[in-house]
Amino acid sequence: MSSQRHWVSPPASLLQPLSVPDRLLLGPGPSNSPPRVLSAGSRQLIGHLHKELIQIMDDIKGGIQYIFQTQNPLTLAISGTGHCAMEAAFLNLVEQGDKVLAAVNGIWGERATDIASRLGAEVHQLVKAPGEYFTLEEIERGLMQHSPFLFFITHGESSTGVVQPLDGLGDLCHRYDCLLLVDAVASLGGTPILMDQQGIDILYSGSQKVLSAPPGASPISFSNRARKKIHTRKTKPISFYLDMEELSAYWGCDGNPRKQNYAHHIKVIKVHNIFGLEISWKLHKENSLYLCAGLQKLGLKLFVKEPDARLPTVNTIFVPEGYDWKEITEYIMKNHEIEVSGGLGPSAGKVLRIGLMGYNSTKPNVDRVLHAIGEALQHCLKNKL
Amino acid sequence: MSSQRHWVSPPASLLQPLSVPDRLLLGPGPSNSPPRVLSAGSRQLIGHLHKELIQIMDDIKGGIQYIFQTQNPLTLAISGTGHCAMEAAFLNLVEQGDKVLAAVNGIWGERATDIASRLGAEVHQLVKAPGEYFTLEEIERGLMQHSPFLFFITHGESSTGVVQPLDGLGDLCHRYDCLLLVDAVASLGGTPILMDQQGIDILYSGSQKVLSAPPGASPISFSNRARKKIHTRKTKPISFYLDMEELSAYWGCDGNPRKQNYAHHIKVIKVHNIFGLEISWKLHKENSLYLCAGLQKLGLKLFVKEPDARLPTVNTIFVPEGYDWKEITEYIMKNHEIEVSGGLGPSAGKVLRIGLMGYNSTKPNVDRVLHAIGEALQHCLKNKL
Repeated sequence: MSSQRHWVSPPASLLQPLSVPDRLLLGPGPSNSPPRVLSAGSRQLIGHLHKELIQIMDDIKGGIQYIFQTQNPLTLAISGTGHCAMEAAFLNLVEQGDKVLAAVNGIWGERATDIASRLGAEVHQLVKAPGEYFTLEEIERGLMQHSPFLFFITHGESSTGVVQPLDGLGDLCHRYDCLLLVDAVASLGGTPILMDQQGIDILYSGSQKVLSAPPGASPISFSNRARKKIHTRKTKPISFYLDMEELSAYWGCDGNPRKQNYAHHIKVIKVHNIFGLEISWKLHKENSLYLCAGLQKLGLKLFVKEPDARLPTVNTIFVPEGYDWKEITEYIMKNHEIEVSGGLGPSAGKVLRIGLMGYNSTKPNVDRVLHAIGEALQHCLKNKL
Repeated sequence: MSSQRHWVSPPASLLQPLSVPDRLLLGPGPSNSPPRVLSAGSRQLIGHLHKELIQIMDDIKGGIQYIFQTQNPLTLAISGTGHCAMEAAFLNLVEQGDKVLAAVNGIWGERATDIASRLGAEVHQLVKAPGEYFTLEEIERGLMQHSPFLFFITHGESSTGVVQPLDGLGDLCHRYDCLLLVDAVASLGGTPILMDQQGIDILYSGSQKVLSAPPGASPISFSNRARKKIHTRKTKPISFYLDMEELSAYWGCDGNPRKQNYAHHIKVIKVHNIFGLEISWKLHKENSLYLCAGLQKLGLKLFVKEPDARLPTVNTIFVPEGYDWKEITEYIMKNHEIEVSGGLGPSAGKVLRIGLMGYNSTKPNVDRVLHAIGEALQHCLKNKL
């Protein structure tokens, strides 16, 4: 090599072994992974077209159909995070000028608005205060007023800790010739959602929340009604990477032989699901109730008023008066190696968020975090006497 | 739960432990990962805003700057595969009606054309036969004829096994007020590329090739010239997930305090790089020469005529007369647990591709695959007497 070259040196830190602290992740995600998932992460790779991987993809599809409670053939995992699945949902459905209605009661409705707008949709918002959910009547008024072809709503609003009731919503949307798109990133597996029965047309989630796997493979499913809209598009989706016609051919969702020359790589993750959905929902509910009772015993006030509207996977409390939320979370991280989060978007500065997701939703973890929060409340009071 | 519900059952296979064969991946990627990388894959997760992760991100950035040989501040890893990085490059730069010139001598120029067209660009192609590369004169004629703002070219054409010379290309493009975008998915780390010195404006790669890590984190870098185009866009990029202004804020590339409420998750991968770039380039070259000599000794004909134009990471040979390529690859997979690939796109049916990437580029692996190919040639001849 010529000595005239100005070499950029490698950072010395790359020669050091990777060191990562062992931490209990009780924020709104990621959650910790169980040993079975972690050990799968250390397996050697196989090719993206090997028959064993095709089998694993079929298993993943079946696992997603189970956890979504759907029989939709177009069900697969996106090679990206939950955000990426959100974009995949919009960009396969939306064409320039299409009307979209987004329910906004926290950050995810705002994000959906941003994404759909970038794609050229005419986006209208149905707005409620952070901490509240939408009634069927309110949604019907929005559908009547705006005649959208697509309605977006968040099942588990992780910025506020609200769970959105979904019963009857699919039928309502379909009466107005509208597709129902639901974000279940923070809720899937932790609280009931029944895609086919509730008439949800597009449903997606992430892997690093209740599923307790690393981020990077995100479940998504499309009803036949949604597929029809995709098939009858006038323009190609603006992404090849997330084009459902391409992905569907690779995942064998369209009844044709798999497209073999599709150079898409997927990361293999097996959804951990030992106990079954109903038990998972029950455990998440019980542990959330146990946490909320403990928080109230410490004198803390829950952010979501109605008990039934409380998301069991992300529990929100008001930042108590006389405290700085950041001091509390930093105290707990520093002294207990536990992640607890502040708010996000409209709840920033107002709330603390305690996640109990998947592998992390256990009674011992609740005890640990309650102990840590109690201690933080003693140490972090401002203007102590 | 009500008994009226039609439950979708979990697939029985999900209750089985994951079983993956141990296979030598000598196709065009993915390659096998070394133990150090695999063991990092079994680490517990940490939060996407924890200070340890911020440090790891800075290390990753430094590692990419080293392997790209660039000092660009806007250097980071995309949460997706190489395809996703390709889209990130185009969608941050291209606006409706922008003129793009794509060099097409294999599948990747076609893919670039597809992606840029979806984004509304006016795409022109500069075409050569698969197996050939482009000269500066040919490219200059294309720039003169079409006046594009962006020129796309593939450094390592993995569908044909050609390495594209890059010296002088940046200067040429800049004389025509054009940005230079280079795909180095199949070449990075295996053959020299010097981003700053060669005047490359946008460079990206994947993690599952020479870097020998799992797919899902893809290096990308933008020159200040490219950043300027991004900053002066009239419209927002159509993706939030891949919006470089957002990613740059999260990765701390813009000189401002990091954007803390950015809910993007990244997968931690430490680029393995023990020996240094020059030794890596040298080893890839030596092992490729050793393989090519062995293939010729078996009577096989190399697809790329000029020795200097042969990509050391993906080696291509003509399918020998009297053979079906698929029988050869299946024989080798079945009897030797080695992946060797057929062609892709324009080379489909015509060539066999043998990848020697990163951790897999070793003399013992070459011996193993030569032995397997020799045996396959004896067993797979059609119409045997």
